[in-house]
Amino acid sequence: MLITRRLEFDAGHRIPDHKSRCRHLHGHRYALEVTLGGDIILQAGDPSNGMVMDFAEVKTLVQQHLVDHWDHAFLVHAGDTQVVEFLQSIPNHRTVILGCVPTSENLAEYAFNLLDSVFQDTYGNHLRLERVRLYETPNCWADAVRK
Amino acid sequence: MLITRRLEFDAGHRIPDHKSRCRHLHGHRYALEVTLGGDIILQAGDPSNGMVMDFAEVKTLVQQHLVDHWDHAFLVHAGDTQVVEFLQSIPNHRTVILGCVPTSENLAEYAFNLLDSVFQDTYGNHLRLERVRLYETPNCWADAVRK
Amino acid sequence: MLITRRLEFDAGHRIPDHKSRCRHLHGHRYALEVTLGGDIILQAGDPSNGMVMDFAEVKTLVQQHLVDHWDHAFLVHAGDTQVVEFLQSIPNHRTVILGCVPTSENLAEYAFNLLDSVFQDTYGNHLRLERVRLYETPNCWADAVRK
Amino acid sequence: MLITRRLEFDAGHRIPDHKSRCRHLHGHRYALEVTLGGDIILQAGDPSNGMVMDFAEVKTLVQQHLVDHWDHAFLVHAGDTQVVEFLQSIPNHRTVILGCVPTSENLAEYAFNLLDSVFQDTYGNHLRLERVRLYETPNCWADAVRK
Amino acid sequence: MLITRRLEFDAGHRIPDHKSRCRHLHGHRYALEVTLGGDIILQAGDPSNGMVMDFAEVKTLVQQHLVDHWDHAFLVHAGDTQVVEFLQSIPNHRTVILGCVPTSENLAEYAFNLLDSVFQDTYGNHLRLERVRLYETPNCWADAVRK
Amino acid sequence: MLITRRLEFDAGHRIPDHKSRCRHLHGHRYALEVTLGGDIILQAGDPSNGMVMDFAEVKTLVQQHLVDHWDHAFLVHAGDTQVVEFLQSIPNHRTVILGCVPTSENLAEYAFNLLDSVFQDTYGNHLRLERVRLYETPNCWADAVRK
Repeated sequence: MLITRRLEFDAGHRIPDHKSRCRHLHGHRYALEVTLGGDIILQAGDPSNGMVMDFAEVKTLVQQHLVDHWDHAFLVHAGDTQVVEFLQSIPNHRTVILGCVPTSENLAEYAFNLLDSVFQDTYGNHLRLERVRLYETPNCWADAVRK
Repeated sequence: MLITRRLEFDAGHRIPDHKSRCRHLHGHRYALEVTLGGDIILQAGDPSNGMVMDFAEVKTLVQQHLVDHWDHAFLVHAGDTQVVEFLQSIPNHRTVILGCVPTSENLAEYAFNLLDSVFQDTYGNHLRLERVRLYETPNCWADAVRK
Repeated sequence: MLITRRLEFDAGHRIPDHKSRCRHLHGHRYALEVTLGGDIILQAGDPSNGMVMDFAEVKTLVQQHLVDHWDHAFLVHAGDTQVVEFLQSIPNHRTVILGCVPTSENLAEYAFNLLDSVFQDTYGNHLRLERVRLYETPNCWADAVRK
Repeated sequence: MLITRRLEFDAGHRIPDHKSRCRHLHGHRYALEVTLGGDIILQAGDPSNGMVMDFAEVKTLVQQHLVDHWDHAFLVHAGDTQVVEFLQSIPNHRTVILGCVPTSENLAEYAFNLLDSVFQDTYGNHLRLERVRLYETPNCWADAVRK
Repeated sequence: MLITRRLEFDAGHRIPDHKSRCRHLHGHRYALEVTLGGDIILQAGDPSNGMVMDFAEVKTLVQQHLVDHWDHAFLVHAGDTQVVEFLQSIPNHRTVILGCVPTSENLAEYAFNLLDSVFQDTYGNHLRLERVRLYETPNCWADAVRK
Repeated sequence: MLITRRLEFDAGHRIPDHKSRCRHLHGHRYALEVTLGGDIILQAGDPSNGMVMDFAEVKTLVQQHLVDHWDHAFLVHAGDTQVVEFLQSIPNHRTVILGCVPTSENLAEYAFNLLDSVFQDTYGNHLRLERVRLYETPNCWADAVRK
């Protein structure tokens, strides 16, 4: 059984070495689809009875560990020093400095690795993260899947 | 080759032991995506030539065996006796009594098991149900997949 | 200038005297689109400069005055005594008792009247509620507009 | 008769004096809906016969006069000198400097004024721009309408 | 009070004198949004109590008078004799011959005129058709509105 | 890592031996989702650094090899001689003659085979086409997947 929770957020980014328009500072409405695998919990009377994990709890965890940091933030490669330094000069600016270029592929993989340890099998139902899909636009997306 | 037919319906439900707001009688616009696997039928002149199964026929079967019963119905766990008894007191009320709590996961699994025998390989093209995806909302869904 | 904020919620209802399937207790994913008219605020340095009203504030007000009460609730006509009495027998059940049948039209009008006084012209920019659109499904909706 | 053409683009912006998260450099998937009014052209044999204006031509004009400049650009208020100066320090950066804060309302009005003169009544069918709707997100939008 | 019902259908068409690609026989997923104005019916106990018109009835009428004829049909101008004659040579072919070129604008106006007499004020609530919106694609649409 | 690019186009078709309405010449808004698998390219300073393949390049290739030919075209089975001959009688008509009936399944498989050789692993990142999904309508689609 697989379950998926979708969340959306708006962020800025740029691909510094892109040959075309992605080179400019711009942004997107990103969507994140987090897919978990596991057995259905069978514990009569428990709030999570009949679920793999409560959708509300999935949302809370993804929000807390990722979306609250990335929403209305600028996602920037640590190596893009010109932009990093500028953003750091603005007091209290929400900046997410990444060890990789903020492409959809890298963001999906980063999110997968970040969220993987967040989802713990506490019900003994073999819960685990299976996939993170990241939409950069409604027409372009990347899937980081468990190997 | 895989084909998928999507259908939507509106139903009521509640999760009786939920710790939060799903405890209340409420409802959703559900969407059901039924995925079939099989070879493409190669029978020149046959109405299903070039198809795994005619989409119209997939729709008819899912409608007849599931959506016609669940649409504008209240989906309730047999163990939720308070609600079951009330609904049975309303003459001719469309009530679907299930052996499990009506979470997305349980509804997807129930639908998979129900529909599995409905799709028969009559063309010798290895037709079989592969997945039922059930959307509870546009942001939350469950996949019951063939093991 | 007009601005619109869209919010979604899930609720249960029924149309007691409906001749067809809306008679049963069921539910929908409702969407609410709240449209405000007004001039663009021109106050350099003010957080609302360049806006008719901050979208975040529109959301907060609609959430607080309406969506928090209607989401995961059962919307019922006061005259539908059978259902009202049953819901009142469930401890702490989120029930919204209305003076009218919970059709899209009545819900849109009720929401318009409720929200009309919520939006106050505090910036002197002639802010006022102009329309409430209520989607019962993606294919059916009602507009309550200022007369 | 009214016709509408929808186009989407991705851009960065910030609201410098915003009290909350819009203060950070971020971005959105914007959508622009351009509505034209006019009579249906009745000129048998003419390519635009039966149209108010050819949708392809509407798209070409909006693309050329607006979307090509705003897509994958950073939209910034001239008074937001910190950001303006930084963007001007990046060679060949696509920056749109505006005389107003880049809220949805201001962008919609700016787009209306820009596009108004672009649509000329060349067929004698009273063609004119009636409305520009700008979506900042799928849930927030502004309408600049002809007064 | 305004209510709207949306329906979708797939049809073929071509614009014979189009200077570009609309000249070829092709097709679209059309969507039709039918908007009715009227007062809310106040007749306690009546199935339509609280409605402007039952959405199910709106759908039935539009289906019967329009969609059943246009769905999976080819929409063709009577003056496009080459295509008309060809389609008439196919036995039992669903062809809709129109007195105008099948642009979105003409189809919307045709639909408005056709449906206008279909919606009758039988409840004394001033029911009448106010607008027909026809989407040719998700990005292009025409509105025929009551003058 | 998987990446997907979605493109849409409008085309005409018919299923000549269909028992029901697909027999008529009609059309659809098709959507094509092209999924590629591969490793993330790690070449600092390269425009494709951090990508499996640049989305813009995926789009360009699919457009050039498929969408430019299928958009606003009529897709027809070579064996449907009545239609083939008619379309060939129209000068410069955009007709796509296929060796199979233009069902979703056949179109998806045809697209997969056509595009498979188009995507070449030039970066040594094991790039290859994994799936082509073809939507005939928002509710019906076929997946051709690598065996």
